[in-house]
Amino acid sequence: MRGPARFDLGQLRARMEAVGVDAVIASSFENVYYASGTLIMTQRTVPERLALAIFPRRGDPTLVVCNIEESLSRAESWISDVRAYVEFAQAPLAMLAEVLRERELDRGRLGVEMRSLTAAHFEELGTLVPRAEFVTGDELFHRLRVRKSEREVEHLQRIANITERVVHEVFTGARSGETEQTLAARMSSALLAAGAESAPFCVLSSGENARYAHNPPGPRTVRAGDVIRVDVGGQFDGYFSDLARMAVVGRPSRRQHETYRRLREVQRDTINRMRPGVPAADVFAHCKRQFAAQGLAFRMPHIGHSLGIVLHEEPMIQPYNAAPLEPGMVINIEPLYVDADAAYHLEDLVLVTDGDPVILSDAVKTDEMVVVQ
Amino acid sequence: MRGPARFDLGQLRARMEAVGVDAVIASSFENVYYASGTLIMTQRTVPERLALAIFPRRGDPTLVVCNIEESLSRAESWISDVRAYVEFAQAPLAMLAEVLRERELDRGRLGVEMRSLTAAHFEELGTLVPRAEFVTGDELFHRLRVRKSEREVEHLQRIANITERVVHEVFTGARSGETEQTLAARMSSALLAAGAESAPFCVLSSGENARYAHNPPGPRTVRAGDVIRVDVGGQFDGYFSDLARMAVVGRPSRRQHETYRRLREVQRDTINRMRPGVPAADVFAHCKRQFAAQGLAFRMPHIGHSLGIVLHEEPMIQPYNAAPLEPGMVINIEPLYVDADAAYHLEDLVLVTDGDPVILSDAVKTDEMVVVQ
Repeated sequence: MRGPARFDLGQLRARMEAVGVDAVIASSFENVYYASGTLIMTQRTVPERLALAIFPRRGDPTLVVCNIEESLSRAESWISDVRAYVEFAQAPLAMLAEVLRERELDRGRLGVEMRSLTAAHFEELGTLVPRAEFVTGDELFHRLRVRKSEREVEHLQRIANITERVVHEVFTGARSGETEQTLAARMSSALLAAGAESAPFCVLSSGENARYAHNPPGPRTVRAGDVIRVDVGGQFDGYFSDLARMAVVGRPSRRQHETYRRLREVQRDTINRMRPGVPAADVFAHCKRQFAAQGLAFRMPHIGHSLGIVLHEEPMIQPYNAAPLEPGMVINIEPLYVDADAAYHLEDLVLVTDGDPVILSDAVKTDEMVVVQ
Repeated sequence: MRGPARFDLGQLRARMEAVGVDAVIASSFENVYYASGTLIMTQRTVPERLALAIFPRRGDPTLVVCNIEESLSRAESWISDVRAYVEFAQAPLAMLAEVLRERELDRGRLGVEMRSLTAAHFEELGTLVPRAEFVTGDELFHRLRVRKSEREVEHLQRIANITERVVHEVFTGARSGETEQTLAARMSSALLAAGAESAPFCVLSSGENARYAHNPPGPRTVRAGDVIRVDVGGQFDGYFSDLARMAVVGRPSRRQHETYRRLREVQRDTINRMRPGVPAADVFAHCKRQFAAQGLAFRMPHIGHSLGIVLHEEPMIQPYNAAPLEPGMVINIEPLYVDADAAYHLEDLVLVTDGDPVILSDAVKTDEMVVVQ
């Protein structure tokens, strides 16, 4: 069983019972990895190469993978019934249909991942098992993943701390006149050197470039007077890190200093609100009020999100999400303030507990922006 | 218009006319980028944040994006009708439905990307425009992307050459006793330093570890007698590079030397077969025959693939693909041979022309494996 997850088959079955589903089928990278314990990286890079994990309410699960991934799946997964299809020669969904017929589930009520399975695959599946009834199974897996295990929390904290230190080292070693691209490459490289298997994103922008939320780092050189914002993450054993940090080139102006201080106060105040039972929407509304109290314009559709095997996981901290926070949730809080010639952004990782919320990304102080010489 | 693509609206419209489609809707990262000219990186990292480009057969196209991405889309895209939705507050597909009603397309025949749109979104769309008829629109975009523009070929060659040089430098600088993980991190880092915006994969395995197709590089140290295989790529301006290269630690054994020589001969012989009009399946069959002629066991479901904004694009060089090669196609050819204690893998980028095929990944010689001291 690879990775820090603690998959609970009993809990999944209890929920299947509760919603009256005879089997659920995992097809996304996140749920195949989470529930079967095998990390099939080509599910991300070659998505049409399906991997499927079938969990009947009664009886053993089955894993259907491309034969290219068979040896890895057998080595990593706790599921012993692994079936391999030859890509192009055999249809993975036909192999799934065979498993369903064997188990007499082809007339059953089947939960599928409607939010990630493609429309074409869903139509194909309907043709292959025409008597089955399909229902949305996304929530069944989501419920398992929404509270992190102790090992997941440790892992997420460890990789957050790595990411903080990497950003801090690159910022403190940066010099006026370097390009955004150089700084971003140094951060991603340091994440890889620290053990990330990939460096999927590094949004680093300076000065007026920051008015675009997600432009790739470019040839702009950072210079005295700029604030620099970075939003960066790596993937470590399939899990994301994701943090935003700020620097300023040369001595910050009073306005820059003050804006950052206010944004950070908004963030800490919002984090303090994250207690069990508080609806996600209330945390959002509180954050919005704090922006107003600090005299900062508020323009965010969400102010945070959980993360894990997926970069944005539920709960999303957005105004329409009434779901209450629960102990064991790990959530990024990331207020962003954009003014005419700069963007201010601070993103930290928070664990919801039975008591006070705990900031997991606590390896490097963020009281002030890092000053680049 | 960002990126090296040359989107041909006239050609798209002619095909829509030919198949009797009133509008096509791009929803995947690749087709929104290709057709609208804006690179929305969150389409990859936050896939539920939809971006949609609507191309009516008559009249102007419309781009629907999250307001977070609005300023970037306005700056980059040639499409002037950009509409922004507020995430969570407004449903992007409802905004799409509004555009369809405005254009009187809500009772039309609409091509959608069935192979990437999720089943849940497809169902939602069906509810929003219940009188529309939906057909598979994937092929319409695919046909545009399958022959690369001159600038795309130049870009793919440039990033292949960067990748070759990076691999060669890391291999020639490697030492016995280093870990797979260290070598892989150095390669990905060098790609970032050379301008990649991300380093999405680096499969580097040595010795017996290579029996797994896609295990992440680990703590195994490379040592005398090992062959090392790497399959690595970066993303540059949204386009992938992807190459496989080999090294050997210490002087290769006769068997290692001979196995590599044979695999390379198979590859060059297969590449030589890549001429306009030859079905992809014939190239595959030819490669398979060459494995037999060289006395190497053949176990591959495909032996190559096109690439571009997507890592595996059509044409896939597999036994059931009867589509003939066309000039302007850019295709990776990657024979792989696995024996008991090593894997041999060589992957090069080839341009199909009116005449002889051209190997684009030609910056570093591959006659012999690199020898690591």
